[in-house]
Amino acid sequence: MNNRALVIDVTRGGFIESRHQVIAVISDAKGKRHSQWGDADQQVFPRSTAKPLQALPLMLSGAVQDLNLSQQQVAMACSSHNGEPQHSNLVTQWLDQLGMSSEHLECGSHWPLYQPATVALAQSGVQACAVHNNCSGKHCGFLSFAHHQGIDPKGYINHQHPVQLAVNDAMGRMMDLKVADYPMGIDGCSIPTYALPLPSLAMAFARFGTGEQLPDDWQKACHSLYQAMVNEPFYVAGSKRHCTYVMQAYGTQVACKTGAEGVFGAAIPSLGLGIALKALDGTSRAAEVALNVLLNHLHLTPTDPHFEQYLELHNCNKIHVSNVQVAS
Amino acid sequence: MNNRALVIDVTRGGFIESRHQVIAVISDAKGKRHSQWGDADQQVFPRSTAKPLQALPLMLSGAVQDLNLSQQQVAMACSSHNGEPQHSNLVTQWLDQLGMSSEHLECGSHWPLYQPATVALAQSGVQACAVHNNCSGKHCGFLSFAHHQGIDPKGYINHQHPVQLAVNDAMGRMMDLKVADYPMGIDGCSIPTYALPLPSLAMAFARFGTGEQLPDDWQKACHSLYQAMVNEPFYVAGSKRHCTYVMQAYGTQVACKTGAEGVFGAAIPSLGLGIALKALDGTSRAAEVALNVLLNHLHLTPTDPHFEQYLELHNCNKIHVSNVQVAS
Repeated sequence: MNNRALVIDVTRGGFIESRHQVIAVISDAKGKRHSQWGDADQQVFPRSTAKPLQALPLMLSGAVQDLNLSQQQVAMACSSHNGEPQHSNLVTQWLDQLGMSSEHLECGSHWPLYQPATVALAQSGVQACAVHNNCSGKHCGFLSFAHHQGIDPKGYINHQHPVQLAVNDAMGRMMDLKVADYPMGIDGCSIPTYALPLPSLAMAFARFGTGEQLPDDWQKACHSLYQAMVNEPFYVAGSKRHCTYVMQAYGTQVACKTGAEGVFGAAIPSLGLGIALKALDGTSRAAEVALNVLLNHLHLTPTDPHFEQYLELHNCNKIHVSNVQVAS
Repeated sequence: MNNRALVIDVTRGGFIESRHQVIAVISDAKGKRHSQWGDADQQVFPRSTAKPLQALPLMLSGAVQDLNLSQQQVAMACSSHNGEPQHSNLVTQWLDQLGMSSEHLECGSHWPLYQPATVALAQSGVQACAVHNNCSGKHCGFLSFAHHQGIDPKGYINHQHPVQLAVNDAMGRMMDLKVADYPMGIDGCSIPTYALPLPSLAMAFARFGTGEQLPDDWQKACHSLYQAMVNEPFYVAGSKRHCTYVMQAYGTQVACKTGAEGVFGAAIPSLGLGIALKALDGTSRAAEVALNVLLNHLHLTPTDPHFEQYLELHNCNKIHVSNVQVAS
């Protein structure tokens, strides 16, 4: 086992400008570690990396079948989306299908993550609302679960609401722990997030991808969520986003999900493995490159021959100024 | 001397979510170190932290007097501005005054740094152009210098153009070194940036604030630039920006300037000192809090009683979710 963190460098003109440390665990579905980097037995807030797991109650309840939700909708339940028209239109239709409106979303409003979408929205004279929040797909999933179960959705973001209790139970089952025993914070979209052991998150992603160590109905639920993510990667994130890029580049081999503050999770069913990683300083660019490095470490081959482990950064004159890459 | 880096923590629900390391030097105008944190003898790209120094040729040449540039214009020559209407209007007027247009700016275009300004611009049907680039004020300074000196401005962003050579000479004089001897990269606005010793940058800021160790005309030029920055802090950055916030909170005691990838420089003339710091991972939030901590370390008293060393982060429902603060 490697006790050194993965080091990701940002170079400018060939000189190291900034440096990141990333801790990571690759685990199987029983929690046996395949490999690790750094002091990986830390508790981290998974943030949005937990979304595929948080969508389990939606799938397990039968709401997806009963509401006839599409793979795009299921992918959006696991998404941190860009607020592009395809995303916001689908969320609006979904709320309509539930007989609800953006007023029922308790995630708060922000302009789209993807700046061209913000500009286009503003140019069209529309104000951003909760539909454009990058978490609105997940919240539609919560609302659908509540609707299907006959639970009053009001206050569904609170940590003691039946929706969040069901989410915690599902996450706990995937990780063999009790989520509420861990430190709680509030996430960007106002639901609780818990600081959970990184190895448990890696194990959960291994189970998510393989169905191993899970009852039959959970296996099916995980398989359906996995398929929705890899078949509709645009609806998990969007244009120029790393989740979408990786899932497009690796075909159906990898489902992956970013989280704020430099977290990434990934499931690789063909190897029976899950990945969880955290850039200790919370930067996404380090987490993104670290994921690429780990996929390469596992000898996975992207179907896109142009897929690179490192990121190239360009300035606004489109000059290549900087690379983000694993330290040599 | 302190050999440990300054540690800045990001907490969520009281639990440490992410952690940053910041190296810093406080120096006098002769290069004598007042204090330091971490392995501070590193070379860093000052990025936009260098802007007050890069404005010296503009001031020393007499262009400011001859063109009758206002303190707001001089502050903008030292700025990384938000692209708010006050900024873009002033840049447009300035170009007009030179008989030039946005076509002469070689910094490239981007939408305003400040999202409300981007939204308002898009809503008004205007496309972003080079005027809205956060560096357009500095570039107006370069164009004014070239215009005044009778230098063809075309290609002024290239490292061998007379404008950049004059900038390098001025920076070298402030730091007692030859800038071109150091590793060169390309900055966001396409001019060169050089990886220079952090202690030299701190000394340059001490000289900038005090005029010490400089000839009379350089003393006057530094004093004029300093006064413009502290008198017009909105024009150095803008709404909700740390440079503006600090200079407003500390009255005329501190001139400070942020740079990309977690750099900050500050001049404190009353103490005869300059600060240079770099968050090793390149994050601005760490650099901002580190600057606050260092100003407090120097027992400077903000005139704004609400000024806090730490930053509070709120989510889009305006819930306080996170703090960025020095490690306890």
